Amino acid sequence: MSAFKTVRGMRDFLPKDAEKMRHVEQTTRELACLYGYEEVITPVVESHDLLAAKAGEEIRLRMYAFNDMGGRKVALRPEFTPSIARLVATKLRTAPKPLRLFCFGSLYRYDEPQFGRFREFWQADYEIMGSSKPEADAEILILTSDLLQRLGIRNHYLKIGHMGILRGILSQEGMSEDQQNQVMQLLDKKRWEEALTLVQRLGISQQCLATLRNILKIKGKESTQVIKKIMEAVKNYEKAVAATENLKEILDLTIQSNVQFETLVEADFARGLEYYTGMVVEAFVPELDFALVGGGRYDRLIELFGGESTPAVGIASGIDSIILAMKRQKATFKIPREKRVLLMPVNSEMRSRVFEVSSRLREAGISIEIEVMGRGVSKALSDADRRGFTHAVLIGPEEAKANKVVLRDMKKRKQKTVEIKNLVKEIKMKTR
Amino acid sequence: MSAFKTVRGMRDFLPKDAEKMRHVEQTTRELACLYGYEEVITPVVESHDLLAAKAGEEIRLRMYAFNDMGGRKVALRPEFTPSIARLVATKLRTAPKPLRLFCFGSLYRYDEPQFGRFREFWQADYEIMGSSKPEADAEILILTSDLLQRLGIRNHYLKIGHMGILRGILSQEGMSEDQQNQVMQLLDKKRWEEALTLVQRLGISQQCLATLRNILKIKGKESTQVIKKIMEAVKNYEKAVAATENLKEILDLTIQSNVQFETLVEADFARGLEYYTGMVVEAFVPELDFALVGGGRYDRLIELFGGESTPAVGIASGIDSIILAMKRQKATFKIPREKRVLLMPVNSEMRSRVFEVSSRLREAGISIEIEVMGRGVSKALSDADRRGFTHAVLIGPEEAKANKVVLRDMKKRKQKTVEIKNLVKEIKMKTR
Repeated sequence: MSAFKTVRGMRDFLPKDAEKMRHVEQTTRELACLYGYEEVITPVVESHDLLAAKAGEEIRLRMYAFNDMGGRKVALRPEFTPSIARLVATKLRTAPKPLRLFCFGSLYRYDEPQFGRFREFWQADYEIMGSSKPEADAEILILTSDLLQRLGIRNHYLKIGHMGILRGILSQEGMSEDQQNQVMQLLDKKRWEEALTLVQRLGISQQCLATLRNILKIKGKESTQVIKKIMEAVKNYEKAVAATENLKEILDLTIQSNVQFETLVEADFARGLEYYTGMVVEAFVPELDFALVGGGRYDRLIELFGGESTPAVGIASGIDSIILAMKRQKATFKIPREKRVLLMPVNSEMRSRVFEVSSRLREAGISIEIEVMGRGVSKALSDADRRGFTHAVLIGPEEAKANKVVLRDMKKRKQKTVEIKNLVKEIKMKTR
Repeated sequence: MSAFKTVRGMRDFLPKDAEKMRHVEQTTRELACLYGYEEVITPVVESHDLLAAKAGEEIRLRMYAFNDMGGRKVALRPEFTPSIARLVATKLRTAPKPLRLFCFGSLYRYDEPQFGRFREFWQADYEIMGSSKPEADAEILILTSDLLQRLGIRNHYLKIGHMGILRGILSQEGMSEDQQNQVMQLLDKKRWEEALTLVQRLGISQQCLATLRNILKIKGKESTQVIKKIMEAVKNYEKAVAATENLKEILDLTIQSNVQFETLVEADFARGLEYYTGMVVEAFVPELDFALVGGGRYDRLIELFGGESTPAVGIASGIDSIILAMKRQKATFKIPREKRVLLMPVNSEMRSRVFEVSSRLREAGISIEIEVMGRGVSKALSDADRRGFTHAVLIGPEEAKANKVVLRDMKKRKQKTVEIKNLVKEIKMKTR
């Protein structure tokens, strides 16, 4: 039985890592509050049909799927969006729009484990439901950058594109949505030549092929310039022009925000998930070659889940990638370093006094550990020293009779007798 | 596709319920900090062998078990203890003792859904590893009651027993551990007569049967009295006497604590899980017939998972039951009710100014929602009214030129022009 380990791709967070995770979680939740996103919690186990309905093939084939004891085909959620779409199509159907939703939790994909990628991973999601306006897209971009900045990831950029540019061209050339999806998936993997071979085989015009070849080259940090170039390239494709105008409007709206971010606009930026319909975004840092955040606009998904037609835009941020980026950029994890106080009895008669004093200190918000190993004073003190306790409180029979204790400063190796009623004040003073 | 629902036994937390859940979660984490318990996060998916190793049959047969795509037999954790035991037997093997660990998360059991019981449920766990002393047991009892009191569940009691009392008698009568487990499981279900029939069939002495019959009646709120009665009843069984003395010592240690709680000591109190070896506890409220918290001492589990021999004691608290109890006892969920401020442009040219002002306010910690529906002012205001916004900030071209905005108090239906640089102050003033 000594071979018990975590299952491949799963992992434990020991205290130091768990603290970091909870710090990031707390920051994502505070941001949700500042932007008016309300939290929902959906189950890890969902019906397989729901999760498979609109996921790209890559996710669909890598779900933890199984039959439950009632014979239901279920799976562990590989993303939040289907669950949120389900909520908006059902229980939140009549909720006033816009609906801003936040969720945080663990997700599951049977991917090959590698640096920064696990089979159980955490995300914070932010979604605006009910607005088709560019303001909503702009808010999502600003929120994305704001999140990274608040976590101390100062050096990042947002890669931004618009699904309507390529899809607009392809649909005007008469391609079905399935065919478009195949092309977009190749582009998402940066397999440009295969994508171009495919569109040729699907019979698009030579003029269109030239347009596509042209577009694949357009990208850059100067968004105004890039937008101009795209506009020129797609001018014969009405839907692509509209998409480019929409992208321009979104970017223009962010210009006056105090949350400023670097952008990389890419004309051929596609995301693997089939459900995106408009602006798409991913956040990167120079130190890592995978995205920290990804998302975009998905105006038709809620309908596909049986809800009212509901335009929507949102992002998912990967907590593991964020923590990696924070470490690379030496961001500080704002974890309060409390004083650690050990409370110990001088002999076994004093043990119940320890519990009395401990509750008093905890009521005052002081974090206390009690000596529960039955050690003698000198052994307990040297252990406390090794473990980084800043203070020890010793309770002996003489002092206890006089309602006093001995307070020891572990670093200065000094101690003094203190009245119990003044103990809180004494310890708090020492924490400054 | 309109039939998408949560899977049976699973559920969604809409914003109001999610807030309550997060409030309770936060309180459990604050308590962990006050008592010196460090958080660990373990995976939802664990090896089936690990989870099945020492779980009682009831849990073992109700696990969400399946093969992953690599053919590994895995399951969704039905409890935290095996994962923690795994950690302590492996990665934390050399960590200094005592080791105080906290974890919070979702668990999965294929139980019949019923009032207060779901197939996905949440727990907060507190475990002390490495101490066999009664101080550790006493700390766990005090922490249990402290948690409930902090959450506003004032009226509760702890049902307390000791596995060593009955097991001490049965083992002295020569019963194997398996046989003892069968008896304990019947007792846990309060099937006393069946338990007595079983022990007779297993061939215990008439004297022992009389002792057992006697013990099954001993219970009460006056712990000193109850302990005396138990001591008298078990006096011929050395191990049972030692167990009773241990229980007495634990209870005596809690007497001087400021955290006072009502107790119900039961001589025949058994818990379903096979791994308990000493003190066992469950917390109840009069309004509900199931336990809010359950736990006890399990001194041999870590060894069984391949670790060093490590005495341990801990509790698991059920968040769903706690929330139900809070509602029944009209406890307040301390959820900060922030002012809700809506920021809106008077016309579409002003939209980017909205983003500028919003980031300023958020930097000052004010929660802001932006109007993203493209509504006119009067429509947006009446919607804001309906949705309970306390303030609206209107940004118009005239005011913007003068670096001003209009701040409207939604309740008083009054508005005034405010300089942008004073806006934070004005809104904060109004929140008092």
